[in-house]
Amino acid sequence: MTALKEVNSRQLFMGRLAYGEDLLDEITAVCTRENIRLGRIEAIGAVQRARMACYNQKTHEYRFFTIDQPLEIAQLTGNVSIRQGQPMVHAHLTLADDAGNAYGGHLAPGTVIFACEIIIEALEGPEFIREFDEETGLTLWHM
Amino acid sequence: MTALKEVNSRQLFMGRLAYGEDLLDEITAVCTRENIRLGRIEAIGAVQRARMACYNQKTHEYRFFTIDQPLEIAQLTGNVSIRQGQPMVHAHLTLADDAGNAYGGHLAPGTVIFACEIIIEALEGPEFIREFDEETGLTLWHM
Amino acid sequence: MTALKEVNSRQLFMGRLAYGEDLLDEITAVCTRENIRLGRIEAIGAVQRARMACYNQKTHEYRFFTIDQPLEIAQLTGNVSIRQGQPMVHAHLTLADDAGNAYGGHLAPGTVIFACEIIIEALEGPEFIREFDEETGLTLWHM
Repeated sequence: MTALKEVNSRQLFMGRLAYGEDLLDEITAVCTRENIRLGRIEAIGAVQRARMACYNQKTHEYRFFTIDQPLEIAQLTGNVSIRQGQPMVHAHLTLADDAGNAYGGHLAPGTVIFACEIIIEALEGPEFIREFDEETGLTLWHM
Repeated sequence: MTALKEVNSRQLFMGRLAYGEDLLDEITAVCTRENIRLGRIEAIGAVQRARMACYNQKTHEYRFFTIDQPLEIAQLTGNVSIRQGQPMVHAHLTLADDAGNAYGGHLAPGTVIFACEIIIEALEGPEFIREFDEETGLTLWHM
Repeated sequence: MTALKEVNSRQLFMGRLAYGEDLLDEITAVCTRENIRLGRIEAIGAVQRARMACYNQKTHEYRFFTIDQPLEIAQLTGNVSIRQGQPMVHAHLTLADDAGNAYGGHLAPGTVIFACEIIIEALEGPEFIREFDEETGLTLWHM
């Protein structure tokens, strides 16, 4: 069911992420440190290698894959909400190789930062809590 | 001519779109329901199949194409403005298949939602009205 | 080192960029005209041809390449900060051809606008100043 809730902007953070760190871990660490339990994320930059996932809509399992080469982050878009009581970052990204070919998917652990410029908007409002959704097999917001 | 106008943030909506619905129709329905006549949109998620368009800059016609397989929405970016008196959603998106290959284009009717997490920012300010633009053949904002 | 600073939204601009102009120059000109020294940018549209770059993480040099055909801008994401005392636009983008294939990279001069709908959010807060970063060879924010 389509359901949207009104939220409000609370704080805006802008900065960069450390060279050599895991991209998903580092974004999650920032959110934890700044006590962000609801938010939106955007970033550009580059990675030393990428690990992403594509969800199999039939088997309900993620298929993980690695692209083991330097890539530009053409765009990363994500959000922060709550799963099992903890802030969880859900991000998708588009990458590009040195010939300009683009790749995309769900950001997984194992993506190593080369450089990353990020904006995180902390939001306030009703809690967005992820729960198992039978139809898709995903943990989606219980609205 | 390059022309920008100042607008203001009015309301921020965050939520998810229904499984199985048409992606463009569903975003449009939300905007109509919330009375959003000016806004910006971002989303990530997955689709069961996609229908997009690329504009032919010579013939001034859209070429529509379908990618009939499950795909991740690596990113969707769009805006809301007025065409023929009604709110109109204009969105572009980047998709990715299970090998990580990326595809992109102008969102067309016929794209079926698997899961979609969306943020819509309702804006207020001068009306942005789309009118026929001779140079491009598109309906662009009359500034 | 990962470092984020809090910034605040100051003004929001929405509009379109001129047909036939250079995309990077035109965004930079808008920022200069509106006195935006810190900001974030998002856009969709189409280009007559694209020139992008991918950074070589070993040699520390950008490799520039041109895609000499009409393309959709599936998404452009960027920021504004200060380099050598002047506002500098840093943007990445994802493009798509008429078969839907996606390309991406760092926006370089030489990308010609067909149509472009843009939102620029002017931010205020501490200055973000780009300085040479030895580890990456890039001019990154000195935090």
